[in-house]
Amino acid sequence: MKIDINADLGEGFGPYEIADDAALMDQITSANVACGYHAGDPVIMDRTVRLAKEKGVDLGAHVAFPDRMGFGRRKMDMPLGELRAHVLYQLGALDAFARRAGHRITHLNPHGALGNLASADTAIAEALADATGDFDPEIAFLVLPGSALEKAALERGRKVVRLFLADRGYLPNGQLAPRNQKGAVIKDVDAVLARVFQVLGEQKITCVTGEEIDMQVQSILIHSDTPGALELATLLRAKILSAGGVVAPMTRR
Amino acid sequence: MKIDINADLGEGFGPYEIADDAALMDQITSANVACGYHAGDPVIMDRTVRLAKEKGVDLGAHVAFPDRMGFGRRKMDMPLGELRAHVLYQLGALDAFARRAGHRITHLNPHGALGNLASADTAIAEALADATGDFDPEIAFLVLPGSALEKAALERGRKVVRLFLADRGYLPNGQLAPRNQKGAVIKDVDAVLARVFQVLGEQKITCVTGEEIDMQVQSILIHSDTPGALELATLLRAKILSAGGVVAPMTRR
Amino acid sequence: MKIDINADLGEGFGPYEIADDAALMDQITSANVACGYHAGDPVIMDRTVRLAKEKGVDLGAHVAFPDRMGFGRRKMDMPLGELRAHVLYQLGALDAFARRAGHRITHLNPHGALGNLASADTAIAEALADATGDFDPEIAFLVLPGSALEKAALERGRKVVRLFLADRGYLPNGQLAPRNQKGAVIKDVDAVLARVFQVLGEQKITCVTGEEIDMQVQSILIHSDTPGALELATLLRAKILSAGGVVAPMTRR
Amino acid sequence: MKIDINADLGEGFGPYEIADDAALMDQITSANVACGYHAGDPVIMDRTVRLAKEKGVDLGAHVAFPDRMGFGRRKMDMPLGELRAHVLYQLGALDAFARRAGHRITHLNPHGALGNLASADTAIAEALADATGDFDPEIAFLVLPGSALEKAALERGRKVVRLFLADRGYLPNGQLAPRNQKGAVIKDVDAVLARVFQVLGEQKITCVTGEEIDMQVQSILIHSDTPGALELATLLRAKILSAGGVVAPMTRR
Repeated sequence: MKIDINADLGEGFGPYEIADDAALMDQITSANVACGYHAGDPVIMDRTVRLAKEKGVDLGAHVAFPDRMGFGRRKMDMPLGELRAHVLYQLGALDAFARRAGHRITHLNPHGALGNLASADTAIAEALADATGDFDPEIAFLVLPGSALEKAALERGRKVVRLFLADRGYLPNGQLAPRNQKGAVIKDVDAVLARVFQVLGEQKITCVTGEEIDMQVQSILIHSDTPGALELATLLRAKILSAGGVVAPMTRR
Repeated sequence: MKIDINADLGEGFGPYEIADDAALMDQITSANVACGYHAGDPVIMDRTVRLAKEKGVDLGAHVAFPDRMGFGRRKMDMPLGELRAHVLYQLGALDAFARRAGHRITHLNPHGALGNLASADTAIAEALADATGDFDPEIAFLVLPGSALEKAALERGRKVVRLFLADRGYLPNGQLAPRNQKGAVIKDVDAVLARVFQVLGEQKITCVTGEEIDMQVQSILIHSDTPGALELATLLRAKILSAGGVVAPMTRR
Repeated sequence: MKIDINADLGEGFGPYEIADDAALMDQITSANVACGYHAGDPVIMDRTVRLAKEKGVDLGAHVAFPDRMGFGRRKMDMPLGELRAHVLYQLGALDAFARRAGHRITHLNPHGALGNLASADTAIAEALADATGDFDPEIAFLVLPGSALEKAALERGRKVVRLFLADRGYLPNGQLAPRNQKGAVIKDVDAVLARVFQVLGEQKITCVTGEEIDMQVQSILIHSDTPGALELATLLRAKILSAGGVVAPMTRR
Repeated sequence: MKIDINADLGEGFGPYEIADDAALMDQITSANVACGYHAGDPVIMDRTVRLAKEKGVDLGAHVAFPDRMGFGRRKMDMPLGELRAHVLYQLGALDAFARRAGHRITHLNPHGALGNLASADTAIAEALADATGDFDPEIAFLVLPGSALEKAALERGRKVVRLFLADRGYLPNGQLAPRNQKGAVIKDVDAVLARVFQVLGEQKITCVTGEEIDMQVQSILIHSDTPGALELATLLRAKILSAGGVVAPMTRR
C-alpha cells in the first residue's frame, strides 16, 4: 500500500494567495506548480520550487491556457502549434527555478480547461505529450485513468502516473461524474477517506450508480483550494501511515 | 578583423511585428530574442529560435522588465530577489525553445530600462549576473565596455562580449552620449559604416567631443527597429567581407 | 446615394502599429476604435478619439474578448454576466476619452470572435445589446444584415446600421461565405469597387453562387489591416463623390 | 462629530479575494473601488458598485498604475500625458458600472505608488487633478492634508476630502512617518480608536515625537487588507454612534 499524495500549489499571484502552500507541502508528496499562466508568478514559483526541494516533494508543471483572469478554467481555441509553444514556455520557465534549486520537473499535469481537454480530446492530448517529450522525455504524465492524455503518453513511451480524485464521484465507464450530477462531489471527510482506502485496499471504487469499477492508481489528488484541504491531507497521510501504508512521491515507487 | 553582428529580434507580439526578422537573420550572426516580457510570445519565440538555429546565428536572451505596454523602456522598482526570479523565468522559457530546436542560449543581453540599469547600477548588474550564472555559467554577457554588467560578469568569472553601438555617439569616458546631446544619434549610413571600420581597424572611436578613445569590441549592434536596419546590416556585412574581414557569431571567435 | 465608410482603427498597442490611422481617418466617416482588450491602449485610444473628433468621424466602440495575444480572434467561453461586464468596461473606458474630446460614442461594433458570435448566437447578441443599452440607449449597432445582433438590437428598440463587407463573398442566405470557400475573399480592387457600386445602385449583390440577393446597407467596411486599405478607402471615397454620391457618417443620415 | 469611514474595496482579481467586501460595505460610508489596474476586474467592479449603491456607500475611483503583479505598489515612470490617459481609462471604466447601477463616482483616490507620488510630486498631482476634472469636475479628491494632490485640487476649484489614517503615525509636519520609523504603524486596536476620538474631538493628533498637531479631516481610512479590518470598522462605527457622532458618506456632509 504505497501512494503519492498530490496537490496543486503555487496558485497565488502577486499579492494574492489561495492555499496554505507551506503547510500543505508537509503533507503531500508531489506538487503541481502553476507556471504563471493561470496562476503563479516568478517569485511564487521560485519559493514553491525551493520548498518542494527542501521537503522532498516531487515537482510537477501545472501547465494551463494563458488566462489569468479566468484562472485557466476557460477553453481557449488555438492552433496545436501554438498550444505546444505555450506548453514549452511554461515547462522552461518552471525548469529554470528547478535548476537553481537543484530540483527537477518530475511530472506534468494540465490545469483546468486544458486538463479537461487533455482528458477528452486526442489532438490536444497528443500536443501536450509531444511538447513535453520534446522538452524532456523523462517527465511523467499525471493522468486520469482511461483519458486521452494517458493514451497519448503511453503511445509515445512516456511514463504515466494514474490519479484518483478522492472527492469526486465516478461513472461506470471510469470517467468523472459531471458536477451537476448527484454524488459528483463528495464533501464528507469520512466518506472521502473511506474511498481512498477502498482504492488502496481493493483497487476498486464504488461508482455513483453503486457499481464497483477497477481503479488502479498511483496518486491521490487533494484539491488545495477547497476549504479543509490541509486537514484532509493531514488526516489522509496520518491514516495511511497508521494503516501501515507508505506515502511517497510518484517517482520513488 | 573578425566581428559579430548582433540585433534584437522576435520583438513582435500576437498580431504585431516590428522588424523583418527573417531577412535580418540572414545578415546578422547573433540575435537577442525577446522572452515574452517586453515583447515576444511563445509562438514568435519558437519561430525565431528555429530560424536562428537554421541560419547558424547565436541565440541571446533579451531579458526585460515585465512591461509589455511600455516595451520594457520604463524603469520598474522591484526587490533584487524578484528581479532574479524574472530573469530566471525568461531564461528558462527561451531555453525550452532552444532545447527543442537543438540550439542553446549563448548570451544574455538586458533590454531597455533593465539594460540601462545593468550598465549603471552595480546591484542590478550583479543580480543579472547571479541569476544568469545560476541558470548556466556558460552564458556570455553582451555588454557595453566599462559597464557595471561587464564588471559584475568578469568578477564572477563569466564570459563577456563587448558591444559597439555604431549609430550612437560616445562620451570621452566611454559611455553613450545622452540622446538629447548633439551627435548622440548618427543617422547617416556612410558615417555609421565609417565608424564601424574605425573601430575594426584601429580599436578606437571618435567621441562627440572629437577625441579618440579606445573601443575594443567583439560585436556590433544593429537597431532592428529603426528604418533602414536591414539595409544597414546587409551593407555592413558585405563591406566587412569585401574588406577581407570575417563576420562570425560571438561564440565562434 | 449616401453611404458611411467605416474602418477599424486604433488597433496598435504600446510600441506597435497596424494601420496608418491618421491617413485613413481622412477617408472614412466612421471609426471603430479598439478599447484596450484585443488591441489599443489608453494613449492610442486618446489619440484616435481626438482625431475622430477633429475629422468629424463617428466614434464606435470596437469591443472584444480580453485576449490581446490572440487579437480577440479566439472564442472565449464566459458567463453572459461576465460578458456584459466586459462590454460595459470597454464602453466606459472609451467614453472617458470621448468626453474629454467633446465627442460621443455613436455606435458599437463587436470585434473578431465576439463579432462572429454576436452575428450567430442569440444569447451573446442579446448580452451585447443589453449591456450597450444599459450604458447608453442612443448607441447604434453596426451589424451584418440578418445577424442575431441586428435582431437583438431591433427587438430592444435600438438603432442599427447595416454593414456591407466589400471584399467578402456572400452566400444566398445573406451570410458571409466561409473564408475557405472559393470567392469568399475578393482581392481585386476593381471588383471590390464594382461590388460597392452594385450595392449602392441596386441594393443588391451577386453571391458566390451567381445569384443576386438584396443588400440594403448604410455602411461599407474597409479592412484597415489589409495591405492597400488606404488606397482602397481613398479610391472608394473619390469614386462615390465623383458619381454624385455622398459620403457621410452613419449618424448624419 | 460627523465623519466618513472609508476603505479600499474590490481589490480581488479573477479567482482571488483579499477583503471581505460585502461585510465591510455594511460598516463603511465610502468605498474606493479598484478599476482593473492594480486589482479588480469587470465582474468584481460590477458587483462592488452595485453593493455600494445598495448600501448607500459613496463610490470612489481607486486609480493606479497598470501593474497587477506589483499590486500598483511600484513606481512606474511614464509621461504625464500617458498618466492622464490611464486615469481617464479607469474613471470611464468604473463610471460604466456606476451608470448601470444608478450610482455615480463621488471621489477619486490614487492607490499605492501613484498615491504616494500624488502626495509628494506636484506634476503628478496636477496630472491627476486635470484628468479627473476633464472627466467630471464634481468628483472630489480624497487627500492627505497638506499633500500635493490637495493643493492641485484646490487650485483647480475641485472639492477635497481630507483623510486620516488611524493606524499610522504622523510627523510634526503632518506627513506620515516612514514605515521603518518607530511608531509608524499602530497595531493596537484601542490605541487606534483613541486616536480617532482625539481627531474627532480635538481636531488634533499626537505625533510620533509626542507633539500635538492639527488634524482636521472628513474621512477615516480603514485598511481593508489588514487582518482585523472588519472588526476595527465595526467597532469604530459603533463607538462613534454610541458617542453621539454621525457616520455619513463624504458627499452627505
